[in-house]
Amino acid sequence: MNPVPAPEPSSPKVARRRFLKGGVALGAALAAGAAQSAVGQPASDDPSRVVGSPMLPYGNRSRFEEGLRQKGPPQLPDEWGGNFTPLDETLGIITPSALHYEVCRGGVPEIDPRKHRLLIHGMVDRPLILTMDEIKRLPSTSRILFLECSGNSRSEWRAPQAAPSVQFTHGCTSCSEWTGVALSLLLREAGAHKGATWIVAEGGDATGNERSIPMAKAMDDVLVAYGQNGEAPRPGNGYPLRLIVPGWEGNVNVKWLRRIKVVDKPYMTRMESPDHTSLMPDGKARQFMFVMEAKSVITFPSGGQRLPGPGFHEIRGLAWSGRGLVRRVEVSKDAGKTWQNAKLQEPVLRFAHTRFRLDWRWDGRPVILQSRCIDETGYVQPTLAELAKVRGLNSVYHNNAIQSWKVAADGSVHNVHI
Amino acid sequence: MNPVPAPEPSSPKVARRRFLKGGVALGAALAAGAAQSAVGQPASDDPSRVVGSPMLPYGNRSRFEEGLRQKGPPQLPDEWGGNFTPLDETLGIITPSALHYEVCRGGVPEIDPRKHRLLIHGMVDRPLILTMDEIKRLPSTSRILFLECSGNSRSEWRAPQAAPSVQFTHGCTSCSEWTGVALSLLLREAGAHKGATWIVAEGGDATGNERSIPMAKAMDDVLVAYGQNGEAPRPGNGYPLRLIVPGWEGNVNVKWLRRIKVVDKPYMTRMESPDHTSLMPDGKARQFMFVMEAKSVITFPSGGQRLPGPGFHEIRGLAWSGRGLVRRVEVSKDAGKTWQNAKLQEPVLRFAHTRFRLDWRWDGRPVILQSRCIDETGYVQPTLAELAKVRGLNSVYHNNAIQSWKVAADGSVHNVHI
Repeated sequence: MNPVPAPEPSSPKVARRRFLKGGVALGAALAAGAAQSAVGQPASDDPSRVVGSPMLPYGNRSRFEEGLRQKGPPQLPDEWGGNFTPLDETLGIITPSALHYEVCRGGVPEIDPRKHRLLIHGMVDRPLILTMDEIKRLPSTSRILFLECSGNSRSEWRAPQAAPSVQFTHGCTSCSEWTGVALSLLLREAGAHKGATWIVAEGGDATGNERSIPMAKAMDDVLVAYGQNGEAPRPGNGYPLRLIVPGWEGNVNVKWLRRIKVVDKPYMTRMESPDHTSLMPDGKARQFMFVMEAKSVITFPSGGQRLPGPGFHEIRGLAWSGRGLVRRVEVSKDAGKTWQNAKLQEPVLRFAHTRFRLDWRWDGRPVILQSRCIDETGYVQPTLAELAKVRGLNSVYHNNAIQSWKVAADGSVHNVHI
Repeated sequence: MNPVPAPEPSSPKVARRRFLKGGVALGAALAAGAAQSAVGQPASDDPSRVVGSPMLPYGNRSRFEEGLRQKGPPQLPDEWGGNFTPLDETLGIITPSALHYEVCRGGVPEIDPRKHRLLIHGMVDRPLILTMDEIKRLPSTSRILFLECSGNSRSEWRAPQAAPSVQFTHGCTSCSEWTGVALSLLLREAGAHKGATWIVAEGGDATGNERSIPMAKAMDDVLVAYGQNGEAPRPGNGYPLRLIVPGWEGNVNVKWLRRIKVVDKPYMTRMESPDHTSLMPDGKARQFMFVMEAKSVITFPSGGQRLPGPGFHEIRGLAWSGRGLVRRVEVSKDAGKTWQNAKLQEPVLRFAHTRFRLDWRWDGRPVILQSRCIDETGYVQPTLAELAKVRGLNSVYHNNAIQSWKVAADGSVHNVHI
């Protein structure tokens, strides 16, 4: 006996009503949706009438899901090699590993973990060569952390370059739970010398990426990570071993980590001399801009999307700061004249993405939406004009300016520089 | 110029030393590992000498990774339809969606989200039929939550059934970040009547799973979820819509959710009458045992694994409770005579898996390892004997007894009932 009658979605008795118009909070949202879609699902097409597919050992997503990383942005040189997360599609704070942004200038290496080694040498008493099994045997720690390429939003320094969607304006940031060994533990085991003030970390891909990192950070919270979201990192994100440097620019989070040399100065490698530096207005280059400053972006509504109509919408976005906790995210619906606090999704974690949300009832008139992040140091995410005053407009990296999205009367959303 | 010389892993100068033997904390761990593996990687096999593969729009894991879900356990009837998470392989607290446990008794349905509808009817003023787009437009929330099949550990009621590995003893629990709409919001929109004390939730697969849930819980923290770890739920986990009932047995977290009927009594459906009930010693059946009690398990070392030798090892495991926060996890290395506190990985989240860890130096003698979870209510995870005193041994469901792993002198690890 089936005590609950089967649903009759096409029955007039339960046909959708244009309920709650007016007085009740969400009425307009649902009523607007009602106009868009047909009610009911033909019985011939009813998945409950057929036995489903077998369960898989390693599950795929549904064939109806279409969110993908994309290379680009198209208006910038291809050799940068960015593969952008579709931030407009992601939910919550964990980025699916399959969609985590990646920058692989020498392609994605295939590394056999049984053959992979980590060498720790230089100013140490006891050089170490560690296998993956040895590394995994040591005391471990896990942490939910954002990564951001310092070139994220490089398209947004100048209006003519501006990218069309949040995937290309901000899609070189993602957030995962990383698991590994504290680098400080390995450096203590190796017996790093007192005069050692820097390390140089090297990756095992074709670019031989090398980055100098101050010893103070190395001994603080850096991880040698072999886990991402509960399994090994994906090949494009450093399989089988990646340095994770919380809050610092993506490139120093060296992927395919194979070597750490303990040294007494920065080594001025290619990736920290011509690259990952900023040309300042006085003609000098600023170097070692490690920390990713407070930043946020509205992911809905965002460029390329289209609102189905006026009424209720939830403004959604992400905020993060390499200096610590996100304290507050403010949203403006009048191009920055007034601001209002968004709700932050708990738990708010240090150096992790923070999801913010704000209820919004769109009246159908054109509007410019912005968000700004305030972190626990009191730092306020700047406008591009404020950033340009200090840094000029010759920078490529570390653009953490406020992003503006214009919602037009027809519901279409566009990237605007105001 | 490359200022840092390339590593020479096969050079005698940096050949691995049996360093740190004795006095230093981790020496034995690393020295033991040294005996196992060859040093160095032939240059012909060096991934840094070749350009890597192109980046993918949706990334796969490395072909060297082999952790898979498995159906089973083999000694129990197949019609249960469990697909078990390899808990021995997972890291941190987020379970990869591809490895999240699933129980699909009618197979995995394929549902087109454009055709899917959620009907809310019964004792309501305004029956609703909602499309996926309408649901996604409403105020959303995200939460990291464990799920556990109430049949998890069903093999462990009696020693002769005991499963060989943690994948089969405990692999029907997993943890994800779920995103969706509060059910309370939908019930308020529908105008649930005052006398309505229960809901019946129905799934859209071939089994037509129906479960009765008290209104108090429905109005408290239940989610109608369309997101799992940043993207849509996998098909085996309810795509495109799943009820998420924090802390309650997996089966009431109805997958492929298509209908909620607001009612004034439980409906005694198949899944809550002959199934998901427990036969007590007095011959009566206990019904609606919704809450998953505090539980924990050591995932390393665990059944089927083999320690490479004496010395340092990190004991690792997971703990959770459907009654709230995990306050403490204790580990015993003497079959339960004495207990010591494990470290809990922050953040410890209500109704989420909590990762625990404990440094351990194995002396090479046989040992029995156990863990027990104490939650914020003060409840202490029981032994099987304690559980049996109350529940008898005719139960299938809700076995949250302490698990014992015996490490033999040869390092092999076995499931033991002591």
